[in-house]
Amino acid sequence: MLLTKAVITAAGRAQRGLPLQTLVDRDGVEKKALEVVLDEAVGAGAEEVCLVVAPGDEAAYRAAAGPHAGRLHVVAQEQPTGYGPALLLARSFTAGQPFLHLVGDHLYVARGPVRSAKQVADLARVEGCAVSAVQPTRESVLRFYGAVGGRRVPQRADLYEVQQVLEKPTPSEAEQVLHVPGLRAGFYLCFFGVHVFTPALMDVLAEGATANPPDLSWALRELARRERYLALEVAGQRYDTGRKYGLLTAQLALALDGVDRDRILTQIVDLLAAADLAPR
Amino acid sequence: MLLTKAVITAAGRAQRGLPLQTLVDRDGVEKKALEVVLDEAVGAGAEEVCLVVAPGDEAAYRAAAGPHAGRLHVVAQEQPTGYGPALLLARSFTAGQPFLHLVGDHLYVARGPVRSAKQVADLARVEGCAVSAVQPTRESVLRFYGAVGGRRVPQRADLYEVQQVLEKPTPSEAEQVLHVPGLRAGFYLCFFGVHVFTPALMDVLAEGATANPPDLSWALRELARRERYLALEVAGQRYDTGRKYGLLTAQLALALDGVDRDRILTQIVDLLAAADLAPR
Repeated sequence: MLLTKAVITAAGRAQRGLPLQTLVDRDGVEKKALEVVLDEAVGAGAEEVCLVVAPGDEAAYRAAAGPHAGRLHVVAQEQPTGYGPALLLARSFTAGQPFLHLVGDHLYVARGPVRSAKQVADLARVEGCAVSAVQPTRESVLRFYGAVGGRRVPQRADLYEVQQVLEKPTPSEAEQVLHVPGLRAGFYLCFFGVHVFTPALMDVLAEGATANPPDLSWALRELARRERYLALEVAGQRYDTGRKYGLLTAQLALALDGVDRDRILTQIVDLLAAADLAPR
Repeated sequence: MLLTKAVITAAGRAQRGLPLQTLVDRDGVEKKALEVVLDEAVGAGAEEVCLVVAPGDEAAYRAAAGPHAGRLHVVAQEQPTGYGPALLLARSFTAGQPFLHLVGDHLYVARGPVRSAKQVADLARVEGCAVSAVQPTRESVLRFYGAVGGRRVPQRADLYEVQQVLEKPTPSEAEQVLHVPGLRAGFYLCFFGVHVFTPALMDVLAEGATANPPDLSWALRELARRERYLALEVAGQRYDTGRKYGLLTAQLALALDGVDRDRILTQIVDLLAAADLAPR
């Protein structure tokens, strides 16, 4: 499967401005969060990237793309109607080809040398089908994520065939519909924010867009019915920069994984020594 | 001394955008860095604030002021000629009254309940003279700061009468000109980024502006010659958000001092546990 395009959705009104925050990447270079996400896409083999943003954000996001500005196509999502319509805005950009999908408000730290998005893209290239990155996630935080159910692919500890998709399920919905044999009790496979989708997903979204804005979870259930659709447990961590202290946590994780690790460890120790840590 | 005005200088081209970064304050509320600085000024008694910014940044900085937007006067500094000309742009705003001066790229964490800027403002109100916050600082980082020399005020461990001011001195300049009796060897009193200035400083800057842009260090030396000018060792820490990992360090310091301390300590421990800390 040839995979050279990526779509980054960053039009969520609550997340506005997050990709414009300044971070220091693992390589010790200061850049905008958007450039870190673009590094992830380009590192996975994306040559062209379609960025879906809120109206009015086009110029600021272009400026934040750093060296990747030349491969950027920016489209505005006029109404905040979710990921389904956002992806559909990139249909003419993807032009019948498979594409990598990243969300603009997540940052990733891989375990090992291969970036999270590249793990997903490489598998999709070999298997020739849609792949979503997932992470076993505690029942208690299911309400923040989309989750999949399915069965383990034989001989693979980290790979599943997707049969069900639910957005922000309740624990009882999850127990009934998303149980995955072999997974630790109370854990479900939640989306990581990295996917490779086939052109069929765009077809499903377009079919679903006749009346209401098409729902992505519905479209993914339909995709799983029509095609082989895999879920890969990636070796890495996702950091949602939109949650409270999300930027702090992502920055710490990047720094502790990067070239400035010892310097940051020293700073943490200094700050802890200076802080008043008596019980309150 | 009546002190109800503040000037915040945020026109430095390298620091552009720093006040627009998102932070979580000690009270656990997400806000822009500018709002945190404005909280500091207002908490010290400022009723009106003049914000000196780079041209083009006016609207974004107004939007980042949060609940303080109503007390904001924004002026643009056309040329990046330093703090002296930046302050002089606020001369008509200060209108012959003393004023608090904060720099836009520093954040403060006080030791104890009284904010750093309020410690300085309260002393200036009592003493009726200019006061700069200072911190004993290692010789090795003198090159980042302005520094003062002077003599200790009798019966006060934290207060000095300023006699000399040098910007980013070399260690040998500092040794010759800025030695302060009683201070630990190898330490000098460096600026903290918080001052209360009298109208006389505006007069000196205006006199100095006839040929070249007036230099603030020169103007402060001249102020010390004309008036009583004190330096106060504040009980607190300053964090320069413009240095590499400055935002991370400031955010950690705020969080470790605030209502979410236990949550952040847990996150640090989780991240350290997940990080690969083997020697490289």
